Amino acid sequence: MGSVAAERTITGWAARDASGILSPYTFTLRKTGPEDVVIKVLFCGVCHTDLHQTKNDLGGSKYPMVPGHEVVGEVVEVGAEVSRFRVGDTVGAGVIVGCCRECAPCKAGVEQYCNKKVWSYNDVYADGKPTQGGFASAMVVDQQFLVRIPSGLAPEQAAPLLCAGVTVYSPLKHFGLTAGGLRAGILGLGGVGHMGVKFAKAMGHHVTVISSSHRKRAEAVDHLGADAYLVSSDEDAMAAAADSLDYIVDTVPAFHPLERFLPLLKLDGKLILMGVINQPLQFLTPMVMLGRKSITGSFTGSMQETQEMLEFCVQRGVTSTIEVVKMEYVNEAFRRLERNDVRYRFVVDVAGSNLDA
Amino acid sequence: MGSVAAERTITGWAARDASGILSPYTFTLRKTGPEDVVIKVLFCGVCHTDLHQTKNDLGGSKYPMVPGHEVVGEVVEVGAEVSRFRVGDTVGAGVIVGCCRECAPCKAGVEQYCNKKVWSYNDVYADGKPTQGGFASAMVVDQQFLVRIPSGLAPEQAAPLLCAGVTVYSPLKHFGLTAGGLRAGILGLGGVGHMGVKFAKAMGHHVTVISSSHRKRAEAVDHLGADAYLVSSDEDAMAAAADSLDYIVDTVPAFHPLERFLPLLKLDGKLILMGVINQPLQFLTPMVMLGRKSITGSFTGSMQETQEMLEFCVQRGVTSTIEVVKMEYVNEAFRRLERNDVRYRFVVDVAGSNLDA
Repeated sequence: MGSVAAERTITGWAARDASGILSPYTFTLRKTGPEDVVIKVLFCGVCHTDLHQTKNDLGGSKYPMVPGHEVVGEVVEVGAEVSRFRVGDTVGAGVIVGCCRECAPCKAGVEQYCNKKVWSYNDVYADGKPTQGGFASAMVVDQQFLVRIPSGLAPEQAAPLLCAGVTVYSPLKHFGLTAGGLRAGILGLGGVGHMGVKFAKAMGHHVTVISSSHRKRAEAVDHLGADAYLVSSDEDAMAAAADSLDYIVDTVPAFHPLERFLPLLKLDGKLILMGVINQPLQFLTPMVMLGRKSITGSFTGSMQETQEMLEFCVQRGVTSTIEVVKMEYVNEAFRRLERNDVRYRFVVDVAGSNLDA
Repeated sequence: MGSVAAERTITGWAARDASGILSPYTFTLRKTGPEDVVIKVLFCGVCHTDLHQTKNDLGGSKYPMVPGHEVVGEVVEVGAEVSRFRVGDTVGAGVIVGCCRECAPCKAGVEQYCNKKVWSYNDVYADGKPTQGGFASAMVVDQQFLVRIPSGLAPEQAAPLLCAGVTVYSPLKHFGLTAGGLRAGILGLGGVGHMGVKFAKAMGHHVTVISSSHRKRAEAVDHLGADAYLVSSDEDAMAAAADSLDYIVDTVPAFHPLERFLPLLKLDGKLILMGVINQPLQFLTPMVMLGRKSITGSFTGSMQETQEMLEFCVQRGVTSTIEVVKMEYVNEAFRRLERNDVRYRFVVDVAGSNLDA
């Protein structure tokens, strides 16, 4: 176990206002508490939510804001009561770094649904300091909110699993959609969507990628192994696919018309929303009622599910498809992400960017 | 077994156009087929959907239209292969009178979700003739689409159970919401809503009636036995009730803002829609995602569930609260229903109205 150090001064890249442009920012980490783990950040994925938050698309953004919640790091110090990790371990942090530990969701082991959860950035920690994310040389994280990265996973490929990966895995598990032979629809082929195809295929599902254009057909079918590709503006193809899907993983992070997609679901089919959207979505009640369909959603996964998902990935050979960039490229990466020009997730090589130099 | 008669000429009350006004209409029933049962209609409930259909609120209405799908009758003739019913039996017909018998829902015994289902009126039967509902002196119904009214139930009180009753019972059963101790919300206290309170109470749930005004408080609590009453415009009371309900039975048949009600649900809570609404409803995705809530809906129940629900009602002493009227009053009943001025379901005494006289 390491000593409990003083506050460390480190460098991250922060947005300063709703322009969302990131630039170097020096700040202090809290003192290492007894349950805390200090990690040197190795890699951090770039999620669409980072874009929303840095640009204050959802309201409530506080600046300076160091985003990043798909964090893989190396343990460099542990608090006196840390039992689960040792210096040198490769660990992962995700969307949540704190919870109340007392409410029904916390007691049920689904702490991501705690109403007092602490977000890994743009939030305030128990010590009153702002939380800052993984686009920084180091983080201090309570041991409860870290997972072990299994040795069979490359750290840069593990990063997107910590949000995009578990975001798909958790609802498939929770809603009983893991049996082989189910028919899946994946709506939107970005960071979360591409993990959706991979997890659904690994579970033995027949996977249809649903997209607004033909542009990603070859990618979806040849590279990701989707079984079918459906263009949502092709009315004949959409009609032919009616009543065919057990679930749709809807990863689109912008307004889209649900009445186009609900008819694709079978009786008792589920539309599982994963995109945080700042405009209301709409639907007609008979489209839900006349098929007992569900419009539902899911928010990341529990720490336990995250660990389980990582083991699943090792066992089934599931990895993310990423483009690794240096921190200097992050603003361009955000611009490209905004126009969906990434195959399929940017991951920042944080350690290789020498932020503290 | 009765003989297979010629077509019968009978009288119903039909809407002739989108004014929705009903007046006497003479038409013929189909010849009694081998699986058919001819019933003399005793009572027929007035459902809000009848109002929508007669006024063409949902589009697609065909006239002349004899509405009515909560039909209790006495068997007066049976086809050669009818095994389940005999002349003199008291039987019930509901929303559906035909299905394909071959699709997945039909084979799973949830024929109400068959895409080729035949509605009891405003539809076309296998013989090419329009279907006509229960506001008529008689109906011919395939034996598969009839239930037996148990001797412990008064026929007029059984009528609303055949749509309003099973509409609530079926999703509680399907979604696993029958265990004692659950916390229920009933949104809207009309025909379906009042049955919602009664079924939820009979299952041992803590029941909160949610309404737009204080007007029905005494009714809900004193007469129907609700445990709590929540006025949706009372922001403090709504905030205090946040995260408290396992499910909401949403019976409101008109546009209403879901963002007001979704926060009342606990983690994994379900909003179960039962109102056919011709305007889209709206919601914000985080309200669903951050609590893994489901917006779902349900459409009547299967014939098997309907029979089971009737037995449940006898065992638990559940009855509908009704106002019995004669057919001459039906247009006034529709007007009063439109302004929600009924406690809680109009039932037309069809036999007592001597339509064929």
